Amino acid sequence: MANPVLVEAMRGDTRESAHRGAIAVLDADGKRLVALGDIDRPVFPRSAVKLLQAIPLVESGAADRLGLDDEELAIACASHNGEPGHVAVVERMLAKAGLDVGALECGTHWPRIGKVANAIAAAGGEPNALNNNCSGKHAGFLCLACVLCGGVNLSQYAKGYVAPRHPVMRAVTEALEATTGHDLRQAPRGIDGCSIPTYAIPLDRLALAFARIGTGTGTGLRPGHARAGARLRKAVAQHPFMAAGSDRFDTAVMEALGERVYCKVGAEAVFCASFPERGLGVAIKIDDGNTARAAEVAMAAAIEAFVDLDDEEADLLRRLSDAPLRNWNGIEVGALRATPELRDGLNG
Amino acid sequence: MANPVLVEAMRGDTRESAHRGAIAVLDADGKRLVALGDIDRPVFPRSAVKLLQAIPLVESGAADRLGLDDEELAIACASHNGEPGHVAVVERMLAKAGLDVGALECGTHWPRIGKVANAIAAAGGEPNALNNNCSGKHAGFLCLACVLCGGVNLSQYAKGYVAPRHPVMRAVTEALEATTGHDLRQAPRGIDGCSIPTYAIPLDRLALAFARIGTGTGTGLRPGHARAGARLRKAVAQHPFMAAGSDRFDTAVMEALGERVYCKVGAEAVFCASFPERGLGVAIKIDDGNTARAAEVAMAAAIEAFVDLDDEEADLLRRLSDAPLRNWNGIEVGALRATPELRDGLNG
Repeated sequence: MANPVLVEAMRGDTRESAHRGAIAVLDADGKRLVALGDIDRPVFPRSAVKLLQAIPLVESGAADRLGLDDEELAIACASHNGEPGHVAVVERMLAKAGLDVGALECGTHWPRIGKVANAIAAAGGEPNALNNNCSGKHAGFLCLACVLCGGVNLSQYAKGYVAPRHPVMRAVTEALEATTGHDLRQAPRGIDGCSIPTYAIPLDRLALAFARIGTGTGTGLRPGHARAGARLRKAVAQHPFMAAGSDRFDTAVMEALGERVYCKVGAEAVFCASFPERGLGVAIKIDDGNTARAAEVAMAAAIEAFVDLDDEEADLLRRLSDAPLRNWNGIEVGALRATPELRDGLNG
Repeated sequence: MANPVLVEAMRGDTRESAHRGAIAVLDADGKRLVALGDIDRPVFPRSAVKLLQAIPLVESGAADRLGLDDEELAIACASHNGEPGHVAVVERMLAKAGLDVGALECGTHWPRIGKVANAIAAAGGEPNALNNNCSGKHAGFLCLACVLCGGVNLSQYAKGYVAPRHPVMRAVTEALEATTGHDLRQAPRGIDGCSIPTYAIPLDRLALAFARIGTGTGTGLRPGHARAGARLRKAVAQHPFMAAGSDRFDTAVMEALGERVYCKVGAEAVFCASFPERGLGVAIKIDDGNTARAAEVAMAAAIEAFVDLDDEEADLLRRLSDAPLRNWNGIEVGALRATPELRDGLNG
């Protein structure tokens, strides 16, 4: 059976396009508050689980040994815009590990935000691996390698750290497996955009992991993971710009709501969040993979349904869950909005 | 009932994302060869019908009176990249009407192709209305106004030409209504990205219009429309770069296949085509509105199913209907491809 339509693009009074998907909202004990669509089908969580993947960086003691600050911990969980502020923090982090851009194995892409790309082009430049949206996560992996290498030459040890069997990636996968409680040995595996493995996990388990990490509670959550998760969440809440950047949903929402919402988008329209005050975790997948058009709208509706908001916050979220669409002349031609079906499902 | 999945994004062996949609293939007498999904639901055709909207420019005699050449006729049917070659042709066309960029009412946007936008930024510039992907269509409207104005001051007459009741737009809408055979007075109306009206029309009627215009036959097709359509198709076939531009599906396919395929993409994943040799018209709408990710893949599969291709042409189309997905390191991580359901449906 097809998943329900969660987000619709209206032109005038007519639905022009529709985004189907599934959303799970769970508490830390695994109780399902919302199960709209198929939340048991495994989906690749992509970058939505970067905070879970950064847990070993903290739990291993690597973050303390290298003296990483909150900006650096925040960017280890980020899909950033590759803006100058992001690039500087990643460089600083690599320097603490005694490494530079040459150690990054994430590949290079042009920043996706037009003005960031334009600024590089206007200066006659080209992007490098530091501009890659995953460079902070990869710098975190390299910092973790500093502890795991046990005295072996770091550069040599770290080579190929993106491979599933490398000790760095084994530690990262183990943290993902433990926090989601999902057996990843049996899970479909793919290669992510930045070349690390990505494992398909049901939305139900992803929501559970973010409920656990958001609250530090729940049967089976290891104390070390709870502590590391809390530290990473606080770091992101202190520096939401590091999590994404200018004109980005995650940054705007966490700048407004602080520690009351931790949220992280992933490629192909996966979106995970913790609502610590409510003790809840959320996981969304839009079937067609459209992040900006649909996953963000659905997440805004979930925040509206579950987080206590003052008027100003409510206005911000409403602009994200029910946004006017304007054309090149600035004329309002329609709206991009959460469907009644999604809102009804969220309100139980 | 949900439309079938026409295009799938694979990561490894797992389907990561899926695009549902509908496709109609008809002959000029209205016989349905393919009806996959709901082809009776009205959809906004957006830019996919620009050739139909350019018919009055030719039929009215305006194209001849102003001495428009084939490049200019081609760009009147285009959603172009705003590259220097496009901008020059639109400027030339406006000059023939005694107008300039100031007369265009399409609005301004940054070119969507990164390298085109980067080139403007690198030169310290900003885009103007000539760079708008619809500027050629709008220049065509202004040339049509030259004939319709009947001696009144053109600049004054043309002001507000994007409004539904302006004589220019009435002529354009009448051609759309006549070629599709669909009553547009009753149709849902929206405002398009470039501010002209867009009317929702069933895929069935859009495919019929392109079968008629591709063959010049079919009950109810006016001889003047048949002649104008043939001239516009030939102009595009001579200058496929004008129809879209660098790295674009429409340009690449029509450069390879010449007059054997006329195809035109529209926003929100509508895609129309004529296959004149086969006497067929095609209309596709992907439900979620993702053009590059899905409508193009589905159209490539339709061309493979209905157009006789030599080996080199078949290779090109297969790369478009079943494309490897590579990550930032160039590693093949999956594929974007037509589903077996679509291919089976196309092969009847």
